[in-house]
Amino acid sequence: MSFLEKLKNLWPFNSSPKMKAIGFEQALPLDAPNVFIEKMVARPKPAAKEVLVKLSASAVNPVDTKMRAGYQLDGTFRILGFDAVGTVVAVGTEVSLFSVGDKVYYAGAQNKSGANAEYQVVHEQLVGHAPTGLTDAEIAAMPLTSITASEILHEALGYEVKKNSAAGKSILIINGAGGVGSVLIQLAKYMGMTVITTASKPASIAWVKSMGADYILDYHQDLYAQLCGIQYEQVDDIAILQDTNTYWPLVTKVIKPFGRIASIVETTAPIDMGPLKNIGAQFSWVFMFAKANYGVNMASQGEALNNIASLLEQQIIKSTMTTTLLGLSVNNLKRATTMVEEGHSIGKVVIEYEEQL
Amino acid sequence: MSFLEKLKNLWPFNSSPKMKAIGFEQALPLDAPNVFIEKMVARPKPAAKEVLVKLSASAVNPVDTKMRAGYQLDGTFRILGFDAVGTVVAVGTEVSLFSVGDKVYYAGAQNKSGANAEYQVVHEQLVGHAPTGLTDAEIAAMPLTSITASEILHEALGYEVKKNSAAGKSILIINGAGGVGSVLIQLAKYMGMTVITTASKPASIAWVKSMGADYILDYHQDLYAQLCGIQYEQVDDIAILQDTNTYWPLVTKVIKPFGRIASIVETTAPIDMGPLKNIGAQFSWVFMFAKANYGVNMASQGEALNNIASLLEQQIIKSTMTTTLLGLSVNNLKRATTMVEEGHSIGKVVIEYEEQL
Repeated sequence: MSFLEKLKNLWPFNSSPKMKAIGFEQALPLDAPNVFIEKMVARPKPAAKEVLVKLSASAVNPVDTKMRAGYQLDGTFRILGFDAVGTVVAVGTEVSLFSVGDKVYYAGAQNKSGANAEYQVVHEQLVGHAPTGLTDAEIAAMPLTSITASEILHEALGYEVKKNSAAGKSILIINGAGGVGSVLIQLAKYMGMTVITTASKPASIAWVKSMGADYILDYHQDLYAQLCGIQYEQVDDIAILQDTNTYWPLVTKVIKPFGRIASIVETTAPIDMGPLKNIGAQFSWVFMFAKANYGVNMASQGEALNNIASLLEQQIIKSTMTTTLLGLSVNNLKRATTMVEEGHSIGKVVIEYEEQL
Repeated sequence: MSFLEKLKNLWPFNSSPKMKAIGFEQALPLDAPNVFIEKMVARPKPAAKEVLVKLSASAVNPVDTKMRAGYQLDGTFRILGFDAVGTVVAVGTEVSLFSVGDKVYYAGAQNKSGANAEYQVVHEQLVGHAPTGLTDAEIAAMPLTSITASEILHEALGYEVKKNSAAGKSILIINGAGGVGSVLIQLAKYMGMTVITTASKPASIAWVKSMGADYILDYHQDLYAQLCGIQYEQVDDIAILQDTNTYWPLVTKVIKPFGRIASIVETTAPIDMGPLKNIGAQFSWVFMFAKANYGVNMASQGEALNNIASLLEQQIIKSTMTTTLLGLSVNNLKRATTMVEEGHSIGKVVIEYEEQL
């Protein structure tokens, strides 16, 4: 942003203030020079039930890449970013949960502008009070994955996310080292479960251990043999966080009767539901944006974030932030997205925003 | 049974009384002369938590045929029949729910001997008190299908089976005229739902109307066009009671976001779960024998039967019995099974047992 633009934006009689945002207008691969562009756009105004947040950090998720790849060219400038922390600077006429000055964090809604900008509006029901005692970068790493992990545990697997609420149960987590897996391991341990997760690289193994995993299986080796080796030929619950089709035969083989299976990874081919038919076992998708997309039970996401904030403050769980880039810029968004798109990343990549002029 | 056998069985000093049973020792098609055989076998004795029931009627279900077809030859005499009404004549040492003389009805357990016999033992948790004011044949038609319909509504679709508990919701029932469908229509109406069901033959259409269906779609015509025609392009809930694979594209097209789908019919090929991923919709199998097979939550089936008995007594729902054959015999079991195996049968076929000598 040029000095002149900054000056113009600060001009007090400017009736429609602008903000810096990083986005795109066409779906390009990461090595294209203009995959992301910086623009000055109108600062959004909160609708009746929305809060306006001045952002201080955001994180990149696989969903950003999926949305960029699926972008329908219509000439609009699209702002992504679905992990945010910031301060409420204005509230809509019907907002009841937050006040100006509140520090908040949220994932937001897929059908709205994201957090790769100086300001963002978000429906108050999707928002949680930010935990104290953590840096903005540590907080920004958490919302999307925490909501997803909470929905896996509560809505798909049927537990309350409370201390020892699943004591004695076993869960197999396919890919525990990613963003969702890192939170899921910690929450499952808090709930009293035995946590078995896959990981292969030494750094990933060390990471899932630090999250609390009880058993770590090498996904390059025979997973069933490894499960038998640790006396878990069958498990109560399974969370598929990578490649549903590849792991489906294992999953249907090792799920206990009346066990539950959750997946967040779309299938690339039809899957055989037959093995589940007569054993009372259940398979559920979890897609955290469905609630906001269809306006269903959105308040549960604010509640989940408040619960997570409390666990973070009590140090029962810890932030999964592993990398911080300083400054909201095209280059940093490209770097962070590259790390996510390369896959097998550990924890979360966060962009911390510089103080604006 | 010869007169001599009957006499021997009645002999008061006989320490191990026998009973008549109809069963089979090898999996044969219905047109084989010995598909079913009659035998005198030892009258079973109740285990600690079992009741011994003197049976007065039973019904035939598609599961009998599936089990006969899947029979593993091991030389044992297998007794089927998973709908029963009768009177408790003995109780195990730990039975607390029933007393000798109680009239009961139940589906029983797939891994135990069935009801095609004079006597049967059954775990007390699987048993309900028989409704008053109905004939034995009317009662015998109900247990398996009522439990299945209750589990569809409660466990798969997430409702309580109570008056108006699903008011304002719409359900599409694929094949409402069969045994499960006939109960499901009635319960869904009681719960306040709008019931849309498929049927084609005039007799089936008349039958599902008499069960309370609001809209009847012809499955030989374009079902989606018919749904649009009645302003139900989308529905809240779907129960698949026939040919899951054939109806799957329609089902995933018309289910509402966050809607629920249940099926009781095994898939013959993998199904595409992809369309459900991002809409928060859920698919669940229902297989009523899973609980008894794995000893999980069996008491819920006795409770479901007691609830159904109450609804039958209040004439809120009615028995789905359509045909009664008199006498427990090879011929009658063959006739009843033929009617079920021909498919497209309306309601239930019951065998009422004659008074024994």
